[in-house]
Amino acid sequence: MIVVLSGGVGGARLVDGLARVVPPERLVVVANSGDDLWHWGLRVCPDLDTLTYTLSGRADPDRGWGRADERFLALETVRELGGADWFGLGDRDLGLHVTRTAWLRDGVPLSEVTRRVCAAFGVQPTLLPASDTPWETKVRTDDGELAFQEWLVRRRAPPARAIRFEGAGAPPAAVLDALDAARLIVLPPSNPFVSIDPILALPGVRERVAARPVVAVSPLVGGRAVKGPLAENLRDLACDSGRPLAEQLVPSIILDHYGGLIDRFVYEDGDRPPAGVPCLGTRTVMSDVADRERLAREVLAFAEVDL
Amino acid sequence: MIVVLSGGVGGARLVDGLARVVPPERLVVVANSGDDLWHWGLRVCPDLDTLTYTLSGRADPDRGWGRADERFLALETVRELGGADWFGLGDRDLGLHVTRTAWLRDGVPLSEVTRRVCAAFGVQPTLLPASDTPWETKVRTDDGELAFQEWLVRRRAPPARAIRFEGAGAPPAAVLDALDAARLIVLPPSNPFVSIDPILALPGVRERVAARPVVAVSPLVGGRAVKGPLAENLRDLACDSGRPLAEQLVPSIILDHYGGLIDRFVYEDGDRPPAGVPCLGTRTVMSDVADRERLAREVLAFAEVDL
Repeated sequence: MIVVLSGGVGGARLVDGLARVVPPERLVVVANSGDDLWHWGLRVCPDLDTLTYTLSGRADPDRGWGRADERFLALETVRELGGADWFGLGDRDLGLHVTRTAWLRDGVPLSEVTRRVCAAFGVQPTLLPASDTPWETKVRTDDGELAFQEWLVRRRAPPARAIRFEGAGAPPAAVLDALDAARLIVLPPSNPFVSIDPILALPGVRERVAARPVVAVSPLVGGRAVKGPLAENLRDLACDSGRPLAEQLVPSIILDHYGGLIDRFVYEDGDRPPAGVPCLGTRTVMSDVADRERLAREVLAFAEVDL
Repeated sequence: MIVVLSGGVGGARLVDGLARVVPPERLVVVANSGDDLWHWGLRVCPDLDTLTYTLSGRADPDRGWGRADERFLALETVRELGGADWFGLGDRDLGLHVTRTAWLRDGVPLSEVTRRVCAAFGVQPTLLPASDTPWETKVRTDDGELAFQEWLVRRRAPPARAIRFEGAGAPPAAVLDALDAARLIVLPPSNPFVSIDPILALPGVRERVAARPVVAVSPLVGGRAVKGPLAENLRDLACDSGRPLAEQLVPSIILDHYGGLIDRFVYEDGDRPPAGVPCLGTRTVMSDVADRERLAREVLAFAEVDL
């Protein structure tokens, strides 16, 4: 069994590559749901949805999130009425939030909701939310503590002073079972602070991950994050303000952050490889589907997984 | 003050005509909200919305309900997921339901929500929901009692054995004040059973209407309803099964239904005029905006209202 702990866009791209080379019955994806939110009275699960859209060929190829051939007519009306227009839900996307919310209100657990969505969309690997009970990533800023999407989207990621995970309950048994059965655990190029740490913070996860072979793919490329607020998080939470930032935003900062969990490490060819674990330098940026599949094959070969 | 008690499509057309000839500060529209529903976790107010869309030029000109230039992408996703797809909410329309629901959840009364929507959409006459507290039109059928939209839309109007209004609370003071100040009350060609009766059933309404001059426009044309389940309602609730239906579906059945509330009556030219009150036969079908305005002028002139 190959188990991936994944956030949104970067994670979804590598997961898509893995899904193209690993038989679906051997691939389990555990998605961060700590940045889920209630918006417009609906339950929105950005990472899960990016994964289902990507794995079913429904994702917008340019944005990386949301659906292809999307419109934003509902949002236009909300804006016209002076409603909450800071989180960009598309019209096709809305249909999923509406349906999921109705199921959740009927008492269906998020993992079963996700199974139904995957079945309807033709997603074959097993996709699991890291938790069936809502927990929340909270970001402390100079203006007080913010819910994750408030921080990231509404406020455009002001400096983070601390990140914590509120209300983290036990993951579904299927998540723990998959970790126990993992031949390999993959940490894709997601943001460690806000995508992977929330999953690791759930009871029973970190120790299980530590007990299995783990390969991580660095989300840093040439001292920058391909997407999202990672570089800012590293600057604010992991860097020494007395030293030049460029010198610190190198792959070793990611490896160090995971604190001994990682057995093998994949980084962008040309960046400085960290010391301490076997490393593979290759092209980690996935510009197209061929890139995703190539990187997936390289990661598995490097981790000595036979398919 | 001209006060109109209105349901959806037929009512909205005459209201639109009145809005073109009556100064906005002299026109108050009291909308049925007894067929409002929770759908997809959102509060949907079909009659109010048909009125705001029509009065602001946003209504779809062919359907008569919903918005022009509308798409149904959210509904497509809901259908794909096996969700509740029986009530056709459009994407632009959804933005209103989302915003309204958020305001209602914040404790804003429906009348204030409606004021905000009218302000944003540029609707000038005063539009009031008949009640700020939800009440429900319930239809008893041979398969049990159904909520109104379940009966009308989902089940396509099976025979109604009785109609009742559950939980009818007092209307907002503004509704009662408008009725008290009315120089004329207009009952447009809405369905008496499911659009006007719910308003009349609210405490304080019927006696106020009875005390003012009332003109009604018949919704029957040549023994048929222009739109909606009116003919079926009349057949099931007001007709004698021993007599030919065509003979009974004539304007007098509408006048009789209102039981003495009506002082003047407008019916489709060519139909048989009822006895008992002054009648005006004219073209009541409103095919275009010019029709709406002409009918509005004729109704006001017939009721001897000077503009």
